[in-house]
Amino acid sequence: MTEVRNETDSMGQVEVPSDRYWGAQTQRSIHNFPIGRDTFVWGRPVIKALGILKKGAAQANAELGELPQDVADLVVRAADEVIAGDLDDHFPLVVFQTGSGTQSNMNSNEVIANRAIELAGGRLGSKTPVHPNDHVNRGQSSNDTFPTAMHIAVLLELRDRLEADVAVLRDTLAAKAEEFAGVVKVGRTHLQDATPITLGQEMSGWVAQIDYAMAEVGHAAQGLHELAIGGTAVGTGLNAHPRFGELAAQKMGQEAGLELRSAANKFAALSAHDALVQVSAALRTLAGALMKMANDVRWLASGPRNGIGELLIPENEPGSSIMPGKVNPTQAEALTMVTTRVFGNDATVAFAGTQGNFQLNVYKPVMVHGVLESIRLIADASRAFNDHCAVGLEPNTERIEANLSSNLMQVTALNPHIGYDKAAAIAKKAHKEGLTLREAAIASGALTAEEFDQWVVPVDMTHPRRVD
Amino acid sequence: MTEVRNETDSMGQVEVPSDRYWGAQTQRSIHNFPIGRDTFVWGRPVIKALGILKKGAAQANAELGELPQDVADLVVRAADEVIAGDLDDHFPLVVFQTGSGTQSNMNSNEVIANRAIELAGGRLGSKTPVHPNDHVNRGQSSNDTFPTAMHIAVLLELRDRLEADVAVLRDTLAAKAEEFAGVVKVGRTHLQDATPITLGQEMSGWVAQIDYAMAEVGHAAQGLHELAIGGTAVGTGLNAHPRFGELAAQKMGQEAGLELRSAANKFAALSAHDALVQVSAALRTLAGALMKMANDVRWLASGPRNGIGELLIPENEPGSSIMPGKVNPTQAEALTMVTTRVFGNDATVAFAGTQGNFQLNVYKPVMVHGVLESIRLIADASRAFNDHCAVGLEPNTERIEANLSSNLMQVTALNPHIGYDKAAAIAKKAHKEGLTLREAAIASGALTAEEFDQWVVPVDMTHPRRVD
Amino acid sequence: MTEVRNETDSMGQVEVPSDRYWGAQTQRSIHNFPIGRDTFVWGRPVIKALGILKKGAAQANAELGELPQDVADLVVRAADEVIAGDLDDHFPLVVFQTGSGTQSNMNSNEVIANRAIELAGGRLGSKTPVHPNDHVNRGQSSNDTFPTAMHIAVLLELRDRLEADVAVLRDTLAAKAEEFAGVVKVGRTHLQDATPITLGQEMSGWVAQIDYAMAEVGHAAQGLHELAIGGTAVGTGLNAHPRFGELAAQKMGQEAGLELRSAANKFAALSAHDALVQVSAALRTLAGALMKMANDVRWLASGPRNGIGELLIPENEPGSSIMPGKVNPTQAEALTMVTTRVFGNDATVAFAGTQGNFQLNVYKPVMVHGVLESIRLIADASRAFNDHCAVGLEPNTERIEANLSSNLMQVTALNPHIGYDKAAAIAKKAHKEGLTLREAAIASGALTAEEFDQWVVPVDMTHPRRVD
Amino acid sequence: MTEVRNETDSMGQVEVPSDRYWGAQTQRSIHNFPIGRDTFVWGRPVIKALGILKKGAAQANAELGELPQDVADLVVRAADEVIAGDLDDHFPLVVFQTGSGTQSNMNSNEVIANRAIELAGGRLGSKTPVHPNDHVNRGQSSNDTFPTAMHIAVLLELRDRLEADVAVLRDTLAAKAEEFAGVVKVGRTHLQDATPITLGQEMSGWVAQIDYAMAEVGHAAQGLHELAIGGTAVGTGLNAHPRFGELAAQKMGQEAGLELRSAANKFAALSAHDALVQVSAALRTLAGALMKMANDVRWLASGPRNGIGELLIPENEPGSSIMPGKVNPTQAEALTMVTTRVFGNDATVAFAGTQGNFQLNVYKPVMVHGVLESIRLIADASRAFNDHCAVGLEPNTERIEANLSSNLMQVTALNPHIGYDKAAAIAKKAHKEGLTLREAAIASGALTAEEFDQWVVPVDMTHPRRVD
Repeated sequence: MTEVRNETDSMGQVEVPSDRYWGAQTQRSIHNFPIGRDTFVWGRPVIKALGILKKGAAQANAELGELPQDVADLVVRAADEVIAGDLDDHFPLVVFQTGSGTQSNMNSNEVIANRAIELAGGRLGSKTPVHPNDHVNRGQSSNDTFPTAMHIAVLLELRDRLEADVAVLRDTLAAKAEEFAGVVKVGRTHLQDATPITLGQEMSGWVAQIDYAMAEVGHAAQGLHELAIGGTAVGTGLNAHPRFGELAAQKMGQEAGLELRSAANKFAALSAHDALVQVSAALRTLAGALMKMANDVRWLASGPRNGIGELLIPENEPGSSIMPGKVNPTQAEALTMVTTRVFGNDATVAFAGTQGNFQLNVYKPVMVHGVLESIRLIADASRAFNDHCAVGLEPNTERIEANLSSNLMQVTALNPHIGYDKAAAIAKKAHKEGLTLREAAIASGALTAEEFDQWVVPVDMTHPRRVD
Repeated sequence: MTEVRNETDSMGQVEVPSDRYWGAQTQRSIHNFPIGRDTFVWGRPVIKALGILKKGAAQANAELGELPQDVADLVVRAADEVIAGDLDDHFPLVVFQTGSGTQSNMNSNEVIANRAIELAGGRLGSKTPVHPNDHVNRGQSSNDTFPTAMHIAVLLELRDRLEADVAVLRDTLAAKAEEFAGVVKVGRTHLQDATPITLGQEMSGWVAQIDYAMAEVGHAAQGLHELAIGGTAVGTGLNAHPRFGELAAQKMGQEAGLELRSAANKFAALSAHDALVQVSAALRTLAGALMKMANDVRWLASGPRNGIGELLIPENEPGSSIMPGKVNPTQAEALTMVTTRVFGNDATVAFAGTQGNFQLNVYKPVMVHGVLESIRLIADASRAFNDHCAVGLEPNTERIEANLSSNLMQVTALNPHIGYDKAAAIAKKAHKEGLTLREAAIASGALTAEEFDQWVVPVDMTHPRRVD
Repeated sequence: MTEVRNETDSMGQVEVPSDRYWGAQTQRSIHNFPIGRDTFVWGRPVIKALGILKKGAAQANAELGELPQDVADLVVRAADEVIAGDLDDHFPLVVFQTGSGTQSNMNSNEVIANRAIELAGGRLGSKTPVHPNDHVNRGQSSNDTFPTAMHIAVLLELRDRLEADVAVLRDTLAAKAEEFAGVVKVGRTHLQDATPITLGQEMSGWVAQIDYAMAEVGHAAQGLHELAIGGTAVGTGLNAHPRFGELAAQKMGQEAGLELRSAANKFAALSAHDALVQVSAALRTLAGALMKMANDVRWLASGPRNGIGELLIPENEPGSSIMPGKVNPTQAEALTMVTTRVFGNDATVAFAGTQGNFQLNVYKPVMVHGVLESIRLIADASRAFNDHCAVGLEPNTERIEANLSSNLMQVTALNPHIGYDKAAAIAKKAHKEGLTLREAAIASGALTAEEFDQWVVPVDMTHPRRVD
Repeated sequence: MTEVRNETDSMGQVEVPSDRYWGAQTQRSIHNFPIGRDTFVWGRPVIKALGILKKGAAQANAELGELPQDVADLVVRAADEVIAGDLDDHFPLVVFQTGSGTQSNMNSNEVIANRAIELAGGRLGSKTPVHPNDHVNRGQSSNDTFPTAMHIAVLLELRDRLEADVAVLRDTLAAKAEEFAGVVKVGRTHLQDATPITLGQEMSGWVAQIDYAMAEVGHAAQGLHELAIGGTAVGTGLNAHPRFGELAAQKMGQEAGLELRSAANKFAALSAHDALVQVSAALRTLAGALMKMANDVRWLASGPRNGIGELLIPENEPGSSIMPGKVNPTQAEALTMVTTRVFGNDATVAFAGTQGNFQLNVYKPVMVHGVLESIRLIADASRAFNDHCAVGLEPNTERIEANLSSNLMQVTALNPHIGYDKAAAIAKKAHKEGLTLREAAIASGALTAEEFDQWVVPVDMTHPRRVD
């Protein structure tokens, strides 16, 4: 039997496990919201953000004379433990709760208050000398704190997780693009053979997409630097010191290493989360870019004998439980599955983002959860794809050359010399009669063998004509 | 200068073009909703359904003694012209209007009333002897008529357009599957070479998907046979004869050739359109099935020399404005683009479907529009794909055989004889050393050449082992 | 330091923790796919389904003479432990892996083989007397087993979780609808006051939506009874006994208590998962129905003083960290957040469902995960909403009556007597001059006080006119 | 019978209507793609962009010596007519065609060539003195021209349509926010009464959302200034003068009044359209912001007697065909329906954006179509909402004041004075016993009547506490 103690809130008394710092409202939430408990308990990013939030708020309140310094100091010490991850076991709540995140805000208030009380030698649940509402939540409402924590959590995950993991993959691909700058191969449009390209050029397109998408993620994240803090219950800032929002944002920014500020319009900051929707959308674009790249990789690696086969990928595991010796593009599969999941998360986030009413959007938890999940999955999958696939990508030179030599679309180089219509006739002739392009060209009488050899040089077709 | 006449409604007087039958409310809607006018004016399906609706309602009201027979007859005559398409120019409204479709319901009331008045020798706009509200709309509200028309419109388009056009494609593919039942070729999983399959089997999978999806569309359409008619303003049936809903549904069904009935729960029928959402979802599944098929077709036809190249598709047009002689899988491209559009329509419909409040969902027009557009696009694209691609699909036998003979995954046939692990070693050896599977197998010492030839027979691998 | 033992697969040797039954391929997957490990490890439903699958396969193989009875018995004993949940700790893999689920199939093969070996007194990793591929995976491929397990997992979750939890809520609402059948209140369309309705009627619409959606889920689930088993690698059934698929499906069905059968077309069964997409779509419709209901509840309960306030909901927790005494519709918020998540999952599933190529769709894990998550969330949230909100719903009779008495839309009852146009004038007059409807009606001269009292009776407006 | 003439392309001869400038490839496309013809024919924006594209290309080619000046002049004259809209009837193609837009590119080549030939006194179809491929399409491929035209079309529609129409609405709302800055009213969170706010503050949140979203649209549009032009067939620039891309972009920019440049990475520019996806996402965010605003408007205007009723909206039309005198928030309904459509278009665009392969994404037409439709609908609906709703928004002062005076959440002002717990008890007492807050506060003994009157002043609660 678990030892319990009594905790109270404005609705009365509740028993909580005596080895937990949380209070009555957290306990009620555990009882009222047994939804997806296995996988939807908040993790590190949100807990850490709540710690940063409460620390910054206490510091600002103390500086503004709204909290006694000793109370603030206790709050800061407890909040530091939350930030460090020492109290993660005291954050048992799930995503699907009050849509304002009130209960998670109160969870942090309760845990910090009780831990602060303990540090001060007080009795857990006594709310003395630190009260969860009057002190830890001073000048705050769930309606402005939770969205503040949402922004901080996402910003930290973007900075500390996404950027690094995607950069590793991006840099690998960029290095490969450079390494294979001289590998001339068949280009493909509409899945059909097209004019030559280098493998490096092909890969550079992937890199350019990732660069663009990451820049867009970075841009969208700018909007998250504007915090709801200071708006309190409905955006008016009631009960907060007029300088609280700005100062608290600054303190949180110092702790987090971010340029944070209080949002210009608090009414929008509580009732909508459009910057989060924009971040979600940019992550979707990033996922789409990764899907395109992963699809190219697996198609180029298709075969080994009856596909395109121009790219070799690492063999990481047996591919089939029935077909011996099979090697499959499993990293590409994991990454593209992640993409579909990121698309789903984005659908959730954007839908939820439209459903605000009056002074509050009550889909906050599900929105931040979706964005954080997308970040985590893209980061993890990018890293895995890098380590177990991208670093080992190699051209299958033999196949590439064989393919190139049989390609008919080099005919395009003849357009400026003999015109589109004659060039088309040559390509068709070669295709129909199974000739090489050179054979068909000469047979057409439209040009000489010498002209063909001078005009049709695959490597020269991988860049615009030189001009003197 | 356009000639005008005066029309009135409960808000007063409005000028309308004198050569149009519509009245004041239609004219107000034109003025108030200049949204997407180029492409979002209602077309035939909804206009026809409104005609069927008003005809059936008049017949039922007459039979129940709610309308004088002569008035009903006039309404029926005018409605018949609406059904026939003679009055399409008198339905100028767009999708983006009142969310209940009130203005399109009133458009039909006004046009039918005025045309009926004209037939009776009366004065347009006089509301005598036929009043748009009191007679044409008798026992009805937009809230039950518009969703009734939505269901009828979709049912007719499914029956008269989708079924036929998809069936043509489905039957072509089924015939091809039979025709190519004997063409043994490389199977592919994870885009990688796998054990053999026949082209007929491959195509049979496409047919099975289409059959499943069409059955699901048919099932979902069952829900549309339940009509809101009889619910009037809020679902209670206020002001309607108690037998009106059922009788009107029956009359409409006779006109439309459909088994229609009044919905069991009218409150749900007005405030939600879940059956429409289900139809939209089934269309999405159908579109997904078509996308899978079209992608297979274009990948199998990729090349001509540096792709898979096992399927030949018709050449319908020059493929490229710069690359002479290029042939592209354009029908597959159009069809897969349609798929993405159907997905978008479905997103619209499902989102809108959640947004009902109390006794009404006010996203009716955008929902039915999305479903109708999806039907139209799938039908048209299926027909085009059939006529300009599917009917001309042919195996590239030479390529198929060359691919099959170099395939390593026939090794799987050895599992029952020598076990997975030894079989795997043989496949790897062949791959690494560039041997044929037979060469590697014999070199491995695990089996004799005779055994190999007896055990590894591609055509035998396209079905389960025979049992005596 | 963890104790390890060596395990081998066709790629060589790998160290695995000695207290785990899994083998080399599972270990490789742990290494290769560190993606979303916190929350994306497979849970009970998929593990249980894999156990049922392997048990049924062994039984069928034994009966067909494909496996020695003693080997089959060992496999069955180990599989029974998997089914019972005793070996959940031996299933460490995550969703984002090979897109065919090969590694989870192998995980089950390896764990069952090693546990069977242990039961037989053999050495873990020895593959004797039970080999993971040759015995546990006999006549199978990941390509047909994993989708088979997907179907079984979803069917069990639908039956054992969703149905019960949604039924509880549905029955509560149905009972409330009956209980409040006599509570006449204002109807609302376009959010505006409309003709009267009873609270019971209003609630009956919610129930009808849930009933419809659950029937659709049930219908879609029918498609899941068709299993891929018997198709092996590409759908041809290579290496399986010709009766294996059908018999194995039957055995699995006996274990699961489901009517399972081998799919008619295995090529579609491996390369597409349209039945799963349909289930996802039906869950989306269900979620939409729940959202409509939850939104109605919270709007009807809005206030307490400055909203609609016609419905009273239980007070489960303090509503605000800053506004004392506030009570919020938190269960409605959790449920509607779940809806947005279900929409997101559905977007993932439908997108992934389109991306099959040739003989395989390699988005299997992410698809089944999304569907299972949706089921879990809808079930949990329905139960929570029932227990903590629906059971406590009560009408605020005082408010309902006050609202009804001030409502102008009872004017509609006058239409059959004085026509739409005169009735409209009365309503406008009342609205403009702040009169009651009765006052305005009498003042209009269109009817007498007696007539008004006889014609305008709210309760009579909640059903069609009586007919003698 | 239509008069015809013969036109030829590389596949042979085709009859085209003699009064049309298009050639063989356009005619083939009409024949091959009868998909959604009623509503999916390209409109002004794409045709105009194609004109700008071809004009700029000709100018650049002439300047670079790639085209004779007289030929270029003819092309420019014909292109000017395309830009002006004089030749719209000569662009009959639909969205669902080749996924590269090849046929629309050729349509413009053919029309411009033939019109230029006519201007030069030549024979239509003779390709002399202006050849559609060799001259009009000089240095170009559909693969770089069509995405170039996509960008230009979207940029022009954003600038010339969206910005203006949204700005009108935004400015109206901003003016209203200022006008009603002094109207103190009940705030609402979780749909429940909350602390006071001014109507101006409430509206300022709408404006802030629109401003943010428009800024994001503007940011995303930056990505569209990078054009694919210069990449030709696969991104390498084959057959184009090396300075062509940059110079052509500059010429097009001059014509369009935009800062256009050739994309840094052409491989990405052909094979992905991520900037377009980002624009689509930003439009989605904008639509979401408008939905939030429109929902607020209609809920605040709900009633007239049994809803919130704090806002008055214009009466534009009779609201109901059965309920006389009903006024509905129809503009809000149209606008929110548009939102769901924009969400659907975005789903289409984002899905399509992931499906590029190798050197080309072949979902170009459906992508640009979706974005253009969203722009058009948002613009039109914003303008309609402005003209027919926003400009007429007025507070219902009487109702606002009555609501405010009964509100309990003013209790929050007591927190700093008596603490959260005592304040909560007062609010609960008032709620339970039907007292005013003042009555309950005094009865609680926690404060005096004077203190209450001093501390609880609604207007003071609409901003942070003053600090001396």
